Amino acid sequence: MADQEKFVKEIADMTEDFPQWYTDVILKTQLVDYGPVKGTMVIRPYGYEIWENIQHELDRRFKETGHKNAYFPMFIPYSYLLREAEHVEGFAPEVALVTHVGNTELEEKLVVRPTSETIICEMYSRWVHSYRDLPVLINQWANVVRWEKTTRPFLRTSEFLWQEGHTLHRTEGEAVDETLKMLEVYREFMQNVLAIYVLTGPKTESEKFAGATATYGMEAMMLDGKSLQAGTSHYLGQNFSKVFKINYLDSDGTLKVPYSTSWGVSTRLIGALIMAHGDQRGLKLPPKVAPVQTVIVPVAVHKEGVAEKAKEIYETLKKSGVRVELDLREQSPGWKFNEWEMKGVPVRIEIGPRDIENNVAVMVRRDTHEKTTVPLDTLCDTVLKTLDAVQLNMFEQSKAFTTSHIVEAKNLDELSKAVDEKNFVKAMWCGCPECEAKIKAMTAASSRVMPFDQTPIGDKCVCCGKKADKVVYFARAY
Amino acid sequence: MADQEKFVKEIADMTEDFPQWYTDVILKTQLVDYGPVKGTMVIRPYGYEIWENIQHELDRRFKETGHKNAYFPMFIPYSYLLREAEHVEGFAPEVALVTHVGNTELEEKLVVRPTSETIICEMYSRWVHSYRDLPVLINQWANVVRWEKTTRPFLRTSEFLWQEGHTLHRTEGEAVDETLKMLEVYREFMQNVLAIYVLTGPKTESEKFAGATATYGMEAMMLDGKSLQAGTSHYLGQNFSKVFKINYLDSDGTLKVPYSTSWGVSTRLIGALIMAHGDQRGLKLPPKVAPVQTVIVPVAVHKEGVAEKAKEIYETLKKSGVRVELDLREQSPGWKFNEWEMKGVPVRIEIGPRDIENNVAVMVRRDTHEKTTVPLDTLCDTVLKTLDAVQLNMFEQSKAFTTSHIVEAKNLDELSKAVDEKNFVKAMWCGCPECEAKIKAMTAASSRVMPFDQTPIGDKCVCCGKKADKVVYFARAY
Repeated sequence: MADQEKFVKEIADMTEDFPQWYTDVILKTQLVDYGPVKGTMVIRPYGYEIWENIQHELDRRFKETGHKNAYFPMFIPYSYLLREAEHVEGFAPEVALVTHVGNTELEEKLVVRPTSETIICEMYSRWVHSYRDLPVLINQWANVVRWEKTTRPFLRTSEFLWQEGHTLHRTEGEAVDETLKMLEVYREFMQNVLAIYVLTGPKTESEKFAGATATYGMEAMMLDGKSLQAGTSHYLGQNFSKVFKINYLDSDGTLKVPYSTSWGVSTRLIGALIMAHGDQRGLKLPPKVAPVQTVIVPVAVHKEGVAEKAKEIYETLKKSGVRVELDLREQSPGWKFNEWEMKGVPVRIEIGPRDIENNVAVMVRRDTHEKTTVPLDTLCDTVLKTLDAVQLNMFEQSKAFTTSHIVEAKNLDELSKAVDEKNFVKAMWCGCPECEAKIKAMTAASSRVMPFDQTPIGDKCVCCGKKADKVVYFARAY
Repeated sequence: MADQEKFVKEIADMTEDFPQWYTDVILKTQLVDYGPVKGTMVIRPYGYEIWENIQHELDRRFKETGHKNAYFPMFIPYSYLLREAEHVEGFAPEVALVTHVGNTELEEKLVVRPTSETIICEMYSRWVHSYRDLPVLINQWANVVRWEKTTRPFLRTSEFLWQEGHTLHRTEGEAVDETLKMLEVYREFMQNVLAIYVLTGPKTESEKFAGATATYGMEAMMLDGKSLQAGTSHYLGQNFSKVFKINYLDSDGTLKVPYSTSWGVSTRLIGALIMAHGDQRGLKLPPKVAPVQTVIVPVAVHKEGVAEKAKEIYETLKKSGVRVELDLREQSPGWKFNEWEMKGVPVRIEIGPRDIENNVAVMVRRDTHEKTTVPLDTLCDTVLKTLDAVQLNMFEQSKAFTTSHIVEAKNLDELSKAVDEKNFVKAMWCGCPECEAKIKAMTAASSRVMPFDQTPIGDKCVCCGKKADKVVYFARAY
């Protein structure tokens, strides 16, 4: 117990200093480290394995919905960025520029991609000529660079990893359908893989992507009551197609301009995982993405038969497809329990001489701390079922937490109070950007999404009191 | 047949103009396109799927040998590059430099990684303190940038995709073992996955990696008789460890400097695939990495039952794990045969009304052009066996081609003649860099590797005629 207390003390109290708790957890669990260049991060093996699991799950979903992967160059001619007016306004101040190779200055400076709409549309204009070439359904896994003033590992870094889907369609309807389909792919992934409940819907004009006709977002509530934009899906209309002169000959013999979409999620999702599920002991990882799903910690490992039995359990679980680790290091069992709890491993198995005598093992759940004694001959089956149960329970917890922190507000005072009490605020809004800006200035809360279910909860704007017909979620956000 | 001839005419004759054949093949099969910035490439879905299959196969091998993936920032402080003298000399002239963000000049310019030894060793110096922290076995999948004057898609591009392993070890012996182990992982992969025979061994001093103590390479012979360096594994000694001040407390209580290795292969392997296996009709892909392993082309698809039977075969093959495509496009069967041959699909199934009547299908192998009539009830099994047979045969072809193009030379005249006749030349070498340079100047052939089997084939240097005890392969190279 002394061990455990000492261990926990190394992590800041999340109720007292949430940002410090976050920093402690990500560094001490070796998910990440700071890179030498300000604002960059090193994703260490334990963090990268989570990303690999995320990639695996998402990539399967993208392929099942007909998308293929490709790779476009990271260097974009500066002139491309200038072509779409809103796009350049949104990105120009934060792009990294390559101006030299060795000692030689380049004729045109190059943008390190902050996103790839421009270069991808340039290529599509070369590839697409006929309606037979449509739809184009391509995704890219890549690194992107956006120079941000305030950075935090996973949440906001100069360079991050992501995927960006870029599609082209014959009709507006088809493109809008794609935009919403991919939003739903994301939502289902958040629910069933990351076990995070999200609010989805269109963003307001002021919050949409630079160059988009409409942006749909998903927002996840972190344990400090702040919202994290976990992913976006953009309907781009014909904006980029026109600027990059993408045309196709339709079956009726006329030249037309296709409609495009783009959608992306990033390593930010790892930040979402940490802040949606963690607790005072550290990480709490959903089994579907946990690098280690089950750890076996032998007790009194020097006693006859303990190591052997532990190995036997390890082999059985491994054969059943469980990502399992057997911890035979020198440290005490208590130290190991704490470390694996901090690392968020969903299920722990403890096995000692007395357990072996009784033909049982002790199983501990990370999500509920529930401890059960399990007969060895049903252990593997119990672990598999428990992993499923942990996965489901973590989502239920996330959903319950989020929905219990949604408060309705009729006026600015109510909104301000609800935000201070770490809630998402559901309110009516007149639609004017001035009210949005005023709310932000007064409460530091911004509009997050407008839910698809627009059943009104009043008829007056939460800010100006004038007639309002839009339902909006407001929250402080990362 | 008219169709076929026309199609083939679109690809240059590989015996007359091999470089043009290569360009025609990569563009017409839509493996790749040129990016807007000179020297960059867009890897299109058909090319990227090959890369995904390569990644999948290699990644499994890396993990089976105990490595984990991580991700390090792409921006490296310029000062890091300067720390290792040979390293900076090798890379400084070709590095892309980020000097500005938006309109603001950076205090220190940043190198876009040409390789990551420096930044990774910097991080290792923060992570490694005790012998318990060793070995460190980390790999990274990433994009790197090296500005080259002459570029060609896959073979040499400003930006390319690769993996780079970076490991740290307690002893010299362990690090050398790792270097050789990964070379063997690569060799086995080339043989069993890409079906390419390679020559392996240490490189000479003048050909080794900038900063390495020893570089081991694998060289593959392309169909034009030139050699392609397909991958390298470097033993770095304590060079980088010392420069980046990596120290660990050993079990004997003394502070020691670990030994490091690095090893990598890149999207260049796709170029190797094309030039080691292609023919006048286009690509010839080994089944293990072919995006489409089997294509089904129905004949007289409008006739009753043809499309249904083709779909049935498609479903059966798909269920058996074959990457199969059913081509129901409008074009003629002849056009489709040619297109899929050009795209290198290992096995083609043709099925028409008469075949269905006889309860058979026609199967055509891409490697041998062999055509067989196969009963429908054994078709799936036959396809699976044939894919294995194609894979094996392609390696045997590659091995036979390479070994039949290795010629021994006793003097410069013989060497020059053998190189002109598109061979690898096995010769004795005295070990002095002047002879190597002279051979290169006179024949355009460079030393490729020194085979592990150093059984002498003479005792005089092929260049200067003085006493020689080193066996070297010379060849013109990409």
